[in-house]
Amino acid sequence: MAVYTEVSFEELEKLLEQYDIGQPLSFKGIAEGIENSNFYLQTDRGAFILTLYEKRVAAEDLPFFLGLMEHLAEAGVHCPLPVKTRQVQALMQLNRRNATIVTFLTGIALRRPDAAHCASAARVLAGLHKAGEGFKLTRVNALGPKGWRPLAEAIHGADVIEDGITALMTNALEELAAAWPTDLPAGVIHADFFPDNVLFVGNDVGGVIDFYFACNDFYVYDLAIMLNSWCFELDGSFNMTKGQSLINAYRAARGLSEAEIDALPALMRGAALRFLLTRAYDWLNRDPNALVRPKDPREYSKKLRFHNKVKHAREYGL
Amino acid sequence: MAVYTEVSFEELEKLLEQYDIGQPLSFKGIAEGIENSNFYLQTDRGAFILTLYEKRVAAEDLPFFLGLMEHLAEAGVHCPLPVKTRQVQALMQLNRRNATIVTFLTGIALRRPDAAHCASAARVLAGLHKAGEGFKLTRVNALGPKGWRPLAEAIHGADVIEDGITALMTNALEELAAAWPTDLPAGVIHADFFPDNVLFVGNDVGGVIDFYFACNDFYVYDLAIMLNSWCFELDGSFNMTKGQSLINAYRAARGLSEAEIDALPALMRGAALRFLLTRAYDWLNRDPNALVRPKDPREYSKKLRFHNKVKHAREYGL
Repeated sequence: MAVYTEVSFEELEKLLEQYDIGQPLSFKGIAEGIENSNFYLQTDRGAFILTLYEKRVAAEDLPFFLGLMEHLAEAGVHCPLPVKTRQVQALMQLNRRNATIVTFLTGIALRRPDAAHCASAARVLAGLHKAGEGFKLTRVNALGPKGWRPLAEAIHGADVIEDGITALMTNALEELAAAWPTDLPAGVIHADFFPDNVLFVGNDVGGVIDFYFACNDFYVYDLAIMLNSWCFELDGSFNMTKGQSLINAYRAARGLSEAEIDALPALMRGAALRFLLTRAYDWLNRDPNALVRPKDPREYSKKLRFHNKVKHAREYGL
Repeated sequence: MAVYTEVSFEELEKLLEQYDIGQPLSFKGIAEGIENSNFYLQTDRGAFILTLYEKRVAAEDLPFFLGLMEHLAEAGVHCPLPVKTRQVQALMQLNRRNATIVTFLTGIALRRPDAAHCASAARVLAGLHKAGEGFKLTRVNALGPKGWRPLAEAIHGADVIEDGITALMTNALEELAAAWPTDLPAGVIHADFFPDNVLFVGNDVGGVIDFYFACNDFYVYDLAIMLNSWCFELDGSFNMTKGQSLINAYRAARGLSEAEIDALPALMRGAALRFLLTRAYDWLNRDPNALVRPKDPREYSKKLRFHNKVKHAREYGL
């Protein structure tokens, strides 16, 4: 949500000499992305985003992320396409950071998507899952079940956030260690398919952005992340109409097996726990120099408590 | 340099219903401006900036700023033009903030302008001074000499920034109280004509932005602010070639009187003191929740020390 590393016009000009995308007409730092520095770049040939990767994105993961966007774009998914230099390189260096230029996507993220938006976006998620088939690289989900315990152990004094939040996290960890499914259809997932990362033009999805959590995991886990982030109202209640619309649209594009349906409640708890853990950690370990406001962990403790009472996927609208 | 107040797509759509500027296609928070929230807005009819005014901009000054941009744009200055609603209003309310939409200007700010850029920008500054004539509203320079003493008194323990900085400021305050000119050609000045606020397309100025310090004061004080911010190198040395190029271009477009030339050294010290004071204050009173990094006051203590040795405007390239 901020620009960490500045890029001067002179640095930009030098970078652009290596590309064949025209002369710069406009260049602005934009408040987007988790902890990268992003710039809107307009040239006489089009609009682009320049990203400088800050410490949260591991350099060794970049070939996966960039290759995935290229693979998905070729398969027809509207996602940023990494632009290559004349030397056919997509990954560059700028101000001691890894950097890429990708195509700019038109569209605006919605804060309060309605049921029809949920359906449009769910169709795109299913399409993304199918389009990811055949992508050769793989990436372990660092924020999957195996990553939760070390993250939980690094969180100290979480009860200052909310009374009982430590017990809530510990219990969910224990319970999910047993309840987590081991064999479900899997492949490339977006893993951060929040409304922020889906751009709409009118009622249609213009594009999906921010692939920097993408990894290999159960497809239905991605659906659970999406249900968690699209179907709760501001007051914390689950909106069943949106849930139904979302799940139906997803299923129409990519069917769900009995095993996936049975696993959904556990995956919903897991998805809520994953965001609760990272938010609690960021909340308690706030860098005074950071230019982002940490997100409220209590949004996800509330969701996790809701899921703890759910017995069957029907309760989400299935 | 950050977005303080978020604007959802739904809020944007509601706002745009009152304008006749088309449907939104893209909307991004941008890292620009002092302490306002700025958004890049693209519609099917053009590109715009939406600004939400945060606490640093006084509401009662907004008619001056917006009226000035309109006046200057009509006089041919390339500056943002406030867009009016169907009810012919330029100033709106959004999320409990005053808000405006202005036209978007193409161009990129340079971090290291060369002598030719200095000349182009100085011609634009002179043109801005002439174009401001006839503008009916006035605004006192809150950061002029009368504002410096209260600001200095609010700064405590500045020597943690740099040894001797308090004495440097106090001495300059005393000295300038006597040396400050009382009668020079005056009118509307930009008062923050830094390279950040001048957008270039190639070697030409595409536009001037950020009029939120504009006020009535001596024209040559604006020239002094510009010389301070355009003609020093990163190592702190004054670049005489740039100074000469800048002053000559300004004079060719708007002549300087003997009195203005004589006053230039004092005005250079005053301009350096003004930015030293605000930067020292911001450095020492950093809001832990602020999303901007304060700028280094030592850049301006160094400049002030340089000016303290200057006897005549010739030393700046005149």
